[in-house]
Amino acid sequence: MLDVTTVLEQIKIGTIEVTPEHALVKKLQKNAPLKIKLGMDPTAADLHLGHAVVLSKLKQFQDLGHEIIYIIGDFTARIGDPTGKSKTRPPLTEEQIQANSKTYFEQIGKILDLKKVSIVYNSHWLDKLSSKDMVKLCAQVTLARLIEREDFANRMKENQPIGFHELLYPLFQGYDSVELNADVELGGTDQTFNLLMGRFLQEQAGKEPQVIITVPLLEGLDGHQKMSKSLGNAIGLAEQAEQAFGKLMSISDLLMWRYFEILLLKSKSAIEKMQQEVILGLLHPMTLKKEMAHDIVARFWSPFEAQKAKDTFEALFQKKDYSHAEQFRLPDNTPNPIWIVDLLKSLNAIKTSSEAKRLIESNAVHIDDIIISDFKAEIRCKSGMIIKVGKHRIFQIK
Amino acid sequence: MLDVTTVLEQIKIGTIEVTPEHALVKKLQKNAPLKIKLGMDPTAADLHLGHAVVLSKLKQFQDLGHEIIYIIGDFTARIGDPTGKSKTRPPLTEEQIQANSKTYFEQIGKILDLKKVSIVYNSHWLDKLSSKDMVKLCAQVTLARLIEREDFANRMKENQPIGFHELLYPLFQGYDSVELNADVELGGTDQTFNLLMGRFLQEQAGKEPQVIITVPLLEGLDGHQKMSKSLGNAIGLAEQAEQAFGKLMSISDLLMWRYFEILLLKSKSAIEKMQQEVILGLLHPMTLKKEMAHDIVARFWSPFEAQKAKDTFEALFQKKDYSHAEQFRLPDNTPNPIWIVDLLKSLNAIKTSSEAKRLIESNAVHIDDIIISDFKAEIRCKSGMIIKVGKHRIFQIK
Repeated sequence: MLDVTTVLEQIKIGTIEVTPEHALVKKLQKNAPLKIKLGMDPTAADLHLGHAVVLSKLKQFQDLGHEIIYIIGDFTARIGDPTGKSKTRPPLTEEQIQANSKTYFEQIGKILDLKKVSIVYNSHWLDKLSSKDMVKLCAQVTLARLIEREDFANRMKENQPIGFHELLYPLFQGYDSVELNADVELGGTDQTFNLLMGRFLQEQAGKEPQVIITVPLLEGLDGHQKMSKSLGNAIGLAEQAEQAFGKLMSISDLLMWRYFEILLLKSKSAIEKMQQEVILGLLHPMTLKKEMAHDIVARFWSPFEAQKAKDTFEALFQKKDYSHAEQFRLPDNTPNPIWIVDLLKSLNAIKTSSEAKRLIESNAVHIDDIIISDFKAEIRCKSGMIIKVGKHRIFQIK
Repeated sequence: MLDVTTVLEQIKIGTIEVTPEHALVKKLQKNAPLKIKLGMDPTAADLHLGHAVVLSKLKQFQDLGHEIIYIIGDFTARIGDPTGKSKTRPPLTEEQIQANSKTYFEQIGKILDLKKVSIVYNSHWLDKLSSKDMVKLCAQVTLARLIEREDFANRMKENQPIGFHELLYPLFQGYDSVELNADVELGGTDQTFNLLMGRFLQEQAGKEPQVIITVPLLEGLDGHQKMSKSLGNAIGLAEQAEQAFGKLMSISDLLMWRYFEILLLKSKSAIEKMQQEVILGLLHPMTLKKEMAHDIVARFWSPFEAQKAKDTFEALFQKKDYSHAEQFRLPDNTPNPIWIVDLLKSLNAIKTSSEAKRLIESNAVHIDDIIISDFKAEIRCKSGMIIKVGKHRIFQIK
């Protein structure tokens, strides 16, 4: 058994806030499994590396022998967490919620040992709340307290409408903690308000309040915005390891340090040492980036897939051995020659014509090592032809 | 059957607002009984003349053959209508709600024909709302719309806390109208926001929206503040007719005109005519005040009690015939002499020592025509002694 100070130090790596720390120390000193809560609304079908940050922290608690309670927010998904949103979200249908919940398990299973996770649905208790219970719940907070939340305050300031039901969201999330007697709740920094609400409602209910632990929000591939599927800057946990590896190789050197820190939990001093070695020319950034991509894929996919992805990447992009390229057979009725945009669409390399235009105009589309810079180009396809799209996808026509 | 124009004119007497008037005309033209809704939370045991204003308007609809739906807001009483309140009210217990509901019927029965009133409890449908229903209900309005309400806006401006549950109140009241398919809802002017919410929620539910009719808020005996039991300026519908008559005789001449208008529905021109006659010396205000007091008691108690109360008042205060005074036998163990404050308390003429102090200091306590101006006075009681307290209560010791 590790001593409490060591455990606390481990837990704090990669976190933004542990509030209050002394309460966590006290809980750890009980030397009994704690209830560690993480809630996710099944608002999308896919999880991505951004979710992996908090899931890794959860894994750490799992490895330390604590009880992991993973809440599928099927009730709250009907409202849609307004956190960080500048407008009201359309509520999900029951069918969407069911479908999304299912795909979550596979993806979470990449990080957590699902056999040792309690998966619960918050509709299980929230559906049972009566109107009377709801009045009592609402009576525990003031309006002022709720609209302190940054995103609500901003929307009010800018006269953006806030659906009245959106204000219920933090109360429901907090009530989950009361119901589950959570000892610790994890979340991204944008969840701080909601997590504190759980603490508050537990106190109101005369229970031992939970400790809240926040982790940083992961920047997407662009290095600026929060990773989000809808922004197109995400690496999905359900993607192929090769594709994830390629995407990771495409990030800037600056973002690489963030990923080392947030996704691989490298200490500040370890990162500073690497930076020093790069400056002194002892280490090449490309070597480091491959190490980062390898370690991230090893961590969230598997060491085996990581090695394979690294081999493929090196063969393709460094040794230009195109036998590792994604092999693609064009459908029989494909016109030949074909408009470049239609070709990219056939390969599933792009989703929209505007995405194709952007790639072509930035000289990111190569065919057999020739840059295609004309958006209107007609391509005569032939077997064995190599098509590079962006930095990390290479196709070979069968 | 009266024609719609005549009915509309009658309905408008003594109201502040009929919104929208054209919709009421349309509803009346159906020539079928309309559902007329009035809701009252059983937050106090006693109704007073302030409530009589809206109840009289309801009576008018009853006399016109419409269906009167009187809602006992037993569910909403748990929240406490925050309308016009500058702070959160403590919720009532189930027992208080039950007890208060009971006493309401006797008092309403003074004005409405109870046999033709549908009495319903809003807990009947509001208790059944699930948390999911509540989310849907809340999703129909924006926060901005709710906090437009004047009292909420004022409290926010003054940083007075608003319990989050208080914001649910207008939604519940509005939902009552959806549930009951109300055609018309009545209320005091302070209810305008809540009544409009009913209209709005009915529209959202694809129903024909209700017309809202507001009546003025009655000033209390002091002529300044809204009549309210807690302000001590009220005439309770459960009070003795004599006592009500006496209290009515104590109001200012200015307030008398308001009572003529609001409680007796005298037209503006009739009131102006009376005012003219007073100015010309053709009518004595005291004569008019007795007419007002008589007519109000006749209307809300009974013509018989009104006549009796008037006779008593004239005998006592004008002919000084104290055989009409409230006869009172002091308990055997009463000390003699007795402190004036204890004496007034024994007579049930006052409730608190500070009330006694105020009356004594304003020379409003007379014993056998002697003004008692010393708060510390010790009174030697004897049989037949006359004790006047304020302008309208005279006791005789047996």
